[in-house]
Amino acid sequence: MSVICLGTMAFDAIETPFGKVDKIVGGSATYVAYAAANFVTPIQQISIVGYDFPQGEMSEMKNRGISLDGVEIIKDKKSFFWSGIYHMDMNSRDTLITDLNVLEDFNPIVPDAYQGAEFLMLGNLMPKLQMSVIDQLTVRPKLIVLDTMNFWMDVAIDDLKEVLKKVDVLLVNDAEARQLSGELSLVKAARKIIQMGPQFLIIKKGEHGALLFHEEHVFFAPALPLEEVIDPTGAGDTFAGGFIGHLAKTKDISFENMKTAIIVGSVMASFCVEKFGPERLKEISKQDIDARLSEFVQLVNFDIDLV
Amino acid sequence: MSVICLGTMAFDAIETPFGKVDKIVGGSATYVAYAAANFVTPIQQISIVGYDFPQGEMSEMKNRGISLDGVEIIKDKKSFFWSGIYHMDMNSRDTLITDLNVLEDFNPIVPDAYQGAEFLMLGNLMPKLQMSVIDQLTVRPKLIVLDTMNFWMDVAIDDLKEVLKKVDVLLVNDAEARQLSGELSLVKAARKIIQMGPQFLIIKKGEHGALLFHEEHVFFAPALPLEEVIDPTGAGDTFAGGFIGHLAKTKDISFENMKTAIIVGSVMASFCVEKFGPERLKEISKQDIDARLSEFVQLVNFDIDLV
Repeated sequence: MSVICLGTMAFDAIETPFGKVDKIVGGSATYVAYAAANFVTPIQQISIVGYDFPQGEMSEMKNRGISLDGVEIIKDKKSFFWSGIYHMDMNSRDTLITDLNVLEDFNPIVPDAYQGAEFLMLGNLMPKLQMSVIDQLTVRPKLIVLDTMNFWMDVAIDDLKEVLKKVDVLLVNDAEARQLSGELSLVKAARKIIQMGPQFLIIKKGEHGALLFHEEHVFFAPALPLEEVIDPTGAGDTFAGGFIGHLAKTKDISFENMKTAIIVGSVMASFCVEKFGPERLKEISKQDIDARLSEFVQLVNFDIDLV
Repeated sequence: MSVICLGTMAFDAIETPFGKVDKIVGGSATYVAYAAANFVTPIQQISIVGYDFPQGEMSEMKNRGISLDGVEIIKDKKSFFWSGIYHMDMNSRDTLITDLNVLEDFNPIVPDAYQGAEFLMLGNLMPKLQMSVIDQLTVRPKLIVLDTMNFWMDVAIDDLKEVLKKVDVLLVNDAEARQLSGELSLVKAARKIIQMGPQFLIIKKGEHGALLFHEEHVFFAPALPLEEVIDPTGAGDTFAGGFIGHLAKTKDISFENMKTAIIVGSVMASFCVEKFGPERLKEISKQDIDARLSEFVQLVNFDIDLV
């Protein structure tokens, strides 16, 4: 069962109240892949990097069953670079630098070997590029998951709305759900967004968990209360990777199984934030993941007698 | 099984983005009692009101099994009055007016008929008054639940710390937990606060749900995603009323049963916010409560296979 993953592979400079890194590997497709590869392989990357993206990181990915056939390497340009600083609450941040570099020329090409993939994860990118990948696939995947952000709602809303018509699951945060729908209530926002195309909507609320909407159903998964959050960068992408990884592994895209997939996504995100960059994701084992899944069951499990 | 409830019975003027009321019955003990009386009676109020508190409201309370023997009526003074305006997000508010009125002279007396109560709910009030009620009880209740707020941490922290040593459950919001402990991480905050006395700590996060901490355990209950929140006033008190009401009804103060009690509290709070004041709490039936409990089970229930 293969998963195609479109997104950035990049460098980040990050400052949080708990520390600072000047240059660390990042990018949406990096986090998605490291998370999803725990559950299913191959993860088939579609991305673009410059001459400076570390060979060692690419070897690490390949060793984990992440295919880089769809990753273009531009010999005379640098990789995409983002720099940001988090506020004390760790839920909000300011962008300091965005150097597009190789992203300026990105024209994603789906390798022949990727055709027939049953799962497609469209990481946060320009909606036109997300649409281009959908259009190139000769067989529509069983499930298309779209991540996006407020920036594209500001500058490319028409393109985004076209992509929305083509996908099954949309991932946004609460502010983005409000912006996209024009509704303050998340319940009303969800109803409007589902009418735009995606049958399933996941609203991420950071440390406050995530909501899954489908038809008239709603499911809530908390974030694991953590002693220390070191760096939230990539947590949303990691969540997406765990989510689609679990669905691809179990080959079941029902609402019921999506609930479980959201818990798996939350578990993966809870590891991600424990270190800067994707470092923690490279350390954990299946045993670590299972132990934390058990913590989640404890966290939300209760008995109720309605008699 | 009786529950003593100490707190205010008062008037509020409230403005939210969705409407405005100039004078409506409120007060912590009012909300607690209306919520708890759905599960157990008598609820034995200890409060103080002025000549202006409506006779009709007191009759309504008595009809629901709420004893007012401990409610002092001051003939020449007005009831406590609070006025506030909510911000757009409904999670924060500004106080416009606080007229203490009868509260200036409040010296709570526990009626003889209340002695022997097994549950004590200490609503948000000056810590010295909360302590006075504990001291007057000839038999220590099976469970003492304390609600408080940042204001008492600012002006009466020593008194508050003395009360904390005497109670079993503390209810605060996330900002208050951080203030009381000096810790940013709620997990660390909980560990410190539990060392101050209460074996159980509930951290309320408004629309983001509530956390229950006990020893090394943690349980999370979401708030029900609602289409419309009209007025959050009293939601925390209503939560407390549902919580202690369920515990008193089931006569079980285990951690496991407290999880269920928190769900019940969240259910009651979800009704409270649907109308201004405690109006919605007076309309609902056991059937309404059970239906919403079922919604909660749907909201958080998932299957996970750890194999």
